[in-house]
Amino acid sequence: MSHTTREKQQLLARVRRIRGQVDAIERALDTEAGCEKVMHLLASTRAAMSGLMCEVIEGHVRTHLVDEERYPGALNHDGAEELLAVVRTYLK
Amino acid sequence: MSHTTREKQQLLARVRRIRGQVDAIERALDTEAGCEKVMHLLASTRAAMSGLMCEVIEGHVRTHLVDEERYPGALNHDGAEELLAVVRTYLK
Amino acid sequence: MSHTTREKQQLLARVRRIRGQVDAIERALDTEAGCEKVMHLLASTRAAMSGLMCEVIEGHVRTHLVDEERYPGALNHDGAEELLAVVRTYLK
Amino acid sequence: MSHTTREKQQLLARVRRIRGQVDAIERALDTEAGCEKVMHLLASTRAAMSGLMCEVIEGHVRTHLVDEERYPGALNHDGAEELLAVVRTYLK
Repeated sequence: MSHTTREKQQLLARVRRIRGQVDAIERALDTEAGCEKVMHLLASTRAAMSGLMCEVIEGHVRTHLVDEERYPGALNHDGAEELLAVVRTYLK
Repeated sequence: MSHTTREKQQLLARVRRIRGQVDAIERALDTEAGCEKVMHLLASTRAAMSGLMCEVIEGHVRTHLVDEERYPGALNHDGAEELLAVVRTYLK
Repeated sequence: MSHTTREKQQLLARVRRIRGQVDAIERALDTEAGCEKVMHLLASTRAAMSGLMCEVIEGHVRTHLVDEERYPGALNHDGAEELLAVVRTYLK
Repeated sequence: MSHTTREKQQLLARVRRIRGQVDAIERALDTEAGCEKVMHLLASTRAAMSGLMCEVIEGHVRTHLVDEERYPGALNHDGAEELLAVVRTYLK
């Protein structure tokens, strides 16, 4: 999945932050915080999950659509970036 | 936030399931599962979060837009249900 | 649907702009413009439609959830604004 | 943009249906149809636009990420299908 050790650490850090946000939602529900607070926490957690999804999709597009060892240079980078720009717009 | 003890327990159960899903994403990243698996886990976790958001919004609309003690019967239930139907469509 | 003549004119102006955007998509497809151009036009048209939906939902929440003539002051305006803030976030 | 004449005709047919839906929204606003009707028309038009976006993205992924004449066989079809499955889930 992750393509380098550094990328793996970044993805793990992101998912751990998301777990912290989910814990905050649980606390808000448990302590009967207002709807407004719960809705804000849910919205920001969802944004963080979309951000993680974008990062995973980017890695997938850049690494798994073409086997760079067998077909060096075959991936059209401009075309891949256009695709990712659209995906980012829709995942917001 | 939750309007009855039973509702509170249901919301807490939902958020705990979501945390379980986030843990599964972390394990998938940590054990270097394939992109496909990670993307599926992310998509289903996001759907679960949207479901929780819908439930919170429903409670908010039914309970907090009109103070039923002061203004009994003032909330137009058909109008509220139309609104919630649209919100559910967009949160999918 | 629209609650004043002015609101009606604004909504009609919005939907006519959207039709102009849809016409631009048709022309782009017909003249075989690049994918990138078509994807951008689609993304901006979708954003315009989300904006129109937000406006319609706002009118609905402010006008149709409580019959203000029968129950003056019954709508909790803070609660309605919180709801609309969340809806706007999700419709982006 | 479209990669064959047949594909082009299909895309044009889709965008023309969407224009018909936008016209129906305009008529609903102009004749002061109920909010519910307008919200339904908006939701189904948005779904049709997402469908068109999916089709455009699919063509882009299958045709423009790799120049098949220069690098025949270089596109990993399984990887491309996994990506498109995720995109479809998020565009609904």
